[in-house]
Amino acid sequence: MSASQKINPDLAKERKKCSFNTSELTHLLDGGPRKTQERKERERFFLEDPELRSKVPLEYLSHKEKYEEAVRKACLLFKKVQQLQNEGKGGMENFREILGGQLGSAILGDGNPLTLHYVMFIPTLMGQGTYDQQAEWIQKAWECSIIGTYAQTELGHGTFIRGLETTATYDPKTEEFVLNSPTLTSYKWWPGGLGHSANYAVVVAQLHTKETCHGIHSFVVQLRDEETHMPLPGINIGEIGCKLGMNSTNNGYLGFENVRIPRTHMLMKNYQVLSDGTYVSSPSSKLTYGTMIFVRVVLVQDAATYLKKAAIIATRYSAVRRQCQIKPEDPETLILDYVTQQHKLFPNIATCFAFQYAANWLWDIYNDINSQMESGKMDNLPELHATACVLKAVSTADAALGVETLRLACGGHGYMTASNLPSTYGLVTAMCTYEGENTVLLLQSARFLIKVWQNKKNLGNLPTVRYLETASHKQIPFQKSVDWIIAALQKTSASKIGLANNHINDRIRKGQAAEDAWNNTSIELVEAADIHGRTFIVQTFYETVKRLDVSPGLRTVLNKLVELYAVTQALKLSGHLLRFIDINGRNIEALQEWLEELLAAIRPDAVGLVDSFDIRDEVIASALGSYDGNVYERLFEAAQQSPLNAEPVNKSFNQYLKPFLKSHM
Amino acid sequence: MSASQKINPDLAKERKKCSFNTSELTHLLDGGPRKTQERKERERFFLEDPELRSKVPLEYLSHKEKYEEAVRKACLLFKKVQQLQNEGKGGMENFREILGGQLGSAILGDGNPLTLHYVMFIPTLMGQGTYDQQAEWIQKAWECSIIGTYAQTELGHGTFIRGLETTATYDPKTEEFVLNSPTLTSYKWWPGGLGHSANYAVVVAQLHTKETCHGIHSFVVQLRDEETHMPLPGINIGEIGCKLGMNSTNNGYLGFENVRIPRTHMLMKNYQVLSDGTYVSSPSSKLTYGTMIFVRVVLVQDAATYLKKAAIIATRYSAVRRQCQIKPEDPETLILDYVTQQHKLFPNIATCFAFQYAANWLWDIYNDINSQMESGKMDNLPELHATACVLKAVSTADAALGVETLRLACGGHGYMTASNLPSTYGLVTAMCTYEGENTVLLLQSARFLIKVWQNKKNLGNLPTVRYLETASHKQIPFQKSVDWIIAALQKTSASKIGLANNHINDRIRKGQAAEDAWNNTSIELVEAADIHGRTFIVQTFYETVKRLDVSPGLRTVLNKLVELYAVTQALKLSGHLLRFIDINGRNIEALQEWLEELLAAIRPDAVGLVDSFDIRDEVIASALGSYDGNVYERLFEAAQQSPLNAEPVNKSFNQYLKPFLKSHM
Repeated sequence: MSASQKINPDLAKERKKCSFNTSELTHLLDGGPRKTQERKERERFFLEDPELRSKVPLEYLSHKEKYEEAVRKACLLFKKVQQLQNEGKGGMENFREILGGQLGSAILGDGNPLTLHYVMFIPTLMGQGTYDQQAEWIQKAWECSIIGTYAQTELGHGTFIRGLETTATYDPKTEEFVLNSPTLTSYKWWPGGLGHSANYAVVVAQLHTKETCHGIHSFVVQLRDEETHMPLPGINIGEIGCKLGMNSTNNGYLGFENVRIPRTHMLMKNYQVLSDGTYVSSPSSKLTYGTMIFVRVVLVQDAATYLKKAAIIATRYSAVRRQCQIKPEDPETLILDYVTQQHKLFPNIATCFAFQYAANWLWDIYNDINSQMESGKMDNLPELHATACVLKAVSTADAALGVETLRLACGGHGYMTASNLPSTYGLVTAMCTYEGENTVLLLQSARFLIKVWQNKKNLGNLPTVRYLETASHKQIPFQKSVDWIIAALQKTSASKIGLANNHINDRIRKGQAAEDAWNNTSIELVEAADIHGRTFIVQTFYETVKRLDVSPGLRTVLNKLVELYAVTQALKLSGHLLRFIDINGRNIEALQEWLEELLAAIRPDAVGLVDSFDIRDEVIASALGSYDGNVYERLFEAAQQSPLNAEPVNKSFNQYLKPFLKSHM
Repeated sequence: MSASQKINPDLAKERKKCSFNTSELTHLLDGGPRKTQERKERERFFLEDPELRSKVPLEYLSHKEKYEEAVRKACLLFKKVQQLQNEGKGGMENFREILGGQLGSAILGDGNPLTLHYVMFIPTLMGQGTYDQQAEWIQKAWECSIIGTYAQTELGHGTFIRGLETTATYDPKTEEFVLNSPTLTSYKWWPGGLGHSANYAVVVAQLHTKETCHGIHSFVVQLRDEETHMPLPGINIGEIGCKLGMNSTNNGYLGFENVRIPRTHMLMKNYQVLSDGTYVSSPSSKLTYGTMIFVRVVLVQDAATYLKKAAIIATRYSAVRRQCQIKPEDPETLILDYVTQQHKLFPNIATCFAFQYAANWLWDIYNDINSQMESGKMDNLPELHATACVLKAVSTADAALGVETLRLACGGHGYMTASNLPSTYGLVTAMCTYEGENTVLLLQSARFLIKVWQNKKNLGNLPTVRYLETASHKQIPFQKSVDWIIAALQKTSASKIGLANNHINDRIRKGQAAEDAWNNTSIELVEAADIHGRTFIVQTFYETVKRLDVSPGLRTVLNKLVELYAVTQALKLSGHLLRFIDINGRNIEALQEWLEELLAAIRPDAVGLVDSFDIRDEVIASALGSYDGNVYERLFEAAQQSPLNAEPVNKSFNQYLKPFLKSHM
């Protein structure tokens, strides 16, 4: 039994129904046909290398074996990346995609123990090191004669960076910093590759000099001997153990006991400690925002990509799987024809596009503001920061929920590792926590919104919150249009922010401290920020599609997706809409009908839409989601790879089971 | 560094705040102090046996090693169960708890490969076998000289049992059935223990005799040689591979190629094939409902138990973890003091109680109706079936969502296997799919609701739907009371069912076939059943607590939990309430205020409430959730158990990493 290259006939039939040109959509998503081709070349270069495949599927290995296999592949992957660089092909812009993105994750399977070297170690050296320091470190790091990681989070502190406890105390006598972990909670905990892979790290610690603490700063610390890889004296290091996902990233812990490093190992571009211990601080502290925002741009893109993967898997599976009969005289029904199934799939397909365009917007604005910042203009930074926060929170939360909905939509087979849905969920849900926990980010965004609300005039130069000036007073009689939904969401968002603001003020008036009033209103603040974020995504999706230069056929289907995303959000928020907008049950019924019409309208294009994401089978890595739709053959083949199936009788029979069974004879 | 028995001082402080007697609540939940004591004895008997512990945490083992360790423990566990039986202690009622419930799952960790022997194989023999067959098989099965499983689901069919493809064709010449798997999709797929553990199975197959197919029937089939455990000729068998969870259950596949079994191996209590091949059918086919409903009772209980475990973990962690400061001059804030955190925890604590009482109700009614059925009265069976469906769907969906919310509420540490939250999620989410996929069950419940709606009179003898007679006409002016919430939810539920019914009729009137009209209305039907289920749970919780004989202190806190559950459900459904009930935004604001008051009121009792679930540390199995609250010590200790940490330098350094690093020198 072998998964033939023949396309499952049900899936072939679906592809014939498609109303638009899937290549046109693929090119659009890639940014043009040339980009598509470059991507495909890159994919071939990595994915068709037999050395980069594992002999046994990772899930069957022990934790230790998984790590060892990951180091093998990570080294090969880095070599290939360097080969591309040497050929002048693989610029820094593709680096992240290859190492941390979907391509790297397809190759490594469950995390890369060396990724932080390129993704955090080198960028931090570049961003915070002086020219001298860059000269010393970057060459070595770039050619990979040392491997670094970035050690910030501690056992006791993640979100609250100011609370980090690791200390770096300057000793002017020897011109050294002395690093210590004064408590168990001060142990570094989580950095990828820290356990057994990296031999250097940028360590974030509280800087003490001349008996004063100057807050957190970054230091380059050698962790292991370059020849033997043995931990250096005073370095207590290891891995933190298994996790829900990313079990090959080798997340580590690290404790210091009087570890001495030269003064020049503090990264001193923005702050300095002079040899006598004098501390010199930098003029601007907003510079570090840049990286944080950049990372969140990437996360919104990743959220879209994970959701795409799951949408492909669940949609193709639904176009092949038959179960029950709608009418007794008919053959068994394709589960894609059940409206409840469509309701699980199609809004998530639309969401992939919505997030992709939100990420593109954020990327463009990030670049704009970055160049403004270089000329000293910081006006839009708080707005950008608030928007990045809310988009990261909404997109990762919805992507995780979406992946899980799609996994459940595949029934029992979605529970199998071979579907690749469990692992996709493990990776996407992690994003809800790292790089800013979602509730914390929504509250940060809410803080900006409340500030704007309390002083709302001349918002013309703040495009994401401009609507707050007027939205709450607008009359918006119900219409079945995306324009109406956007206006309604804006009014709802504005009303919700206004209400939360009133509640804060009420509480202060009743004698609560401002901070307590904030905390006591925080459920509503989180909701307000969430609604603001969704409003922004709907609007950006709508306006982007309006401006696209595409064929009429593609425009038609894209418009349907915009409508579907908008209606889904409106219905999701109907409890708020009914509170703040002058509409009634009939109008909600009309939205529900519109939803049902859209599901039916998108039905023939469902497979075409996920095909146009153009993700290779190796990246989808799912028995349920491959292009040929040979679901059952692939599930069966996957099972044959279990080492348990290599022998008809497992040794546990003679060791345990037989003695037990025979004890009753 | 060792996790001392000293209680974390923050947690000790919380325990002092508790307003009620936690032992009283524990006894109430157990069903009396004697039951508590029996439970504790049972727990000691199993959990304090050092043989039943693993040397290395399971997550570090390979898939194969996990299975072997599971067989070792499963045999020991069965022996201990038999010991209890011999001492007259462990009746059948505790069996499931020990084998399939929390106790068994604490011991086995990730599934028991032998559970289906007691949970499905023996009960099926008892339910469907004749006296002669029982005499032949049950003795052997009961003393474990054979090990059986139950093979129903196939690669191609789960929900749609009538679509199963395995055939059992009667051959009157030899008086045998010939079993075959005519297609790949007809392979049995999923049965627990089928892969390498069981040597017998009850197999569900399409019965063919005298050239007629009589639908699915059950057959006892020997799979493996009792001495060598080798698969018998014509038996193609193995395991299906890794899954999101339950990786030690040894879920298997099974194909037949002309496997012959004696005629007497068909289970013939209700149907017979005579030796000449004549088929004799049974008078009642409703008897099989019984087991299905029983299993769902158990699932609602399990949903409550998983949620309890996660609530304990997240609440204790939140009472120990400090992060950020509400006010700059204060020490770092316990995360339990953030209102957004309380909003993630406390409604889930309330939900544990609500589900527990719903399960109790279902159990009582199941027993009532079972004895009615024995006297031939079947009137309430459809209602019971519909209620079991909706309660299974709502409780498993909310428990899964709750566990995940609680996991995310523990931030990064909730992502660690040592928190036991990932594994708890893996087990609880599986329940959304097995024993009736949730969307399918909601639609079955909706079918009953629509039927009742279309003929709604004299509902007096149908307690769960009685309200449909009058609810949609009631005037219910807003009040801040649980009575109002129940009335409002009932009116909403009735209106929603009525609306869905209208939409079905509209569609039929426009020319759609009844089946298509049903499918096209199914999103609303699912919502209607879901609201009906929630309404029932709120009401049952409220009424049960009203009748309890408890101290005033405990009553006060239980009432708060009822209110919190009710308000949370009302706010969750506010989009529907605002459509169907005459309320406005101000009323929703009042509900929101009530929610916030309740969170504050429950805050001092939060730790006491989860303590009173009285789940042992071995069962919680979480570094974040142990009774002593020594979170960081336990996380650190757990990491030390990783085999990767047993050596300072992993072999992959010399094998892969060093050659790579040195290649650039």
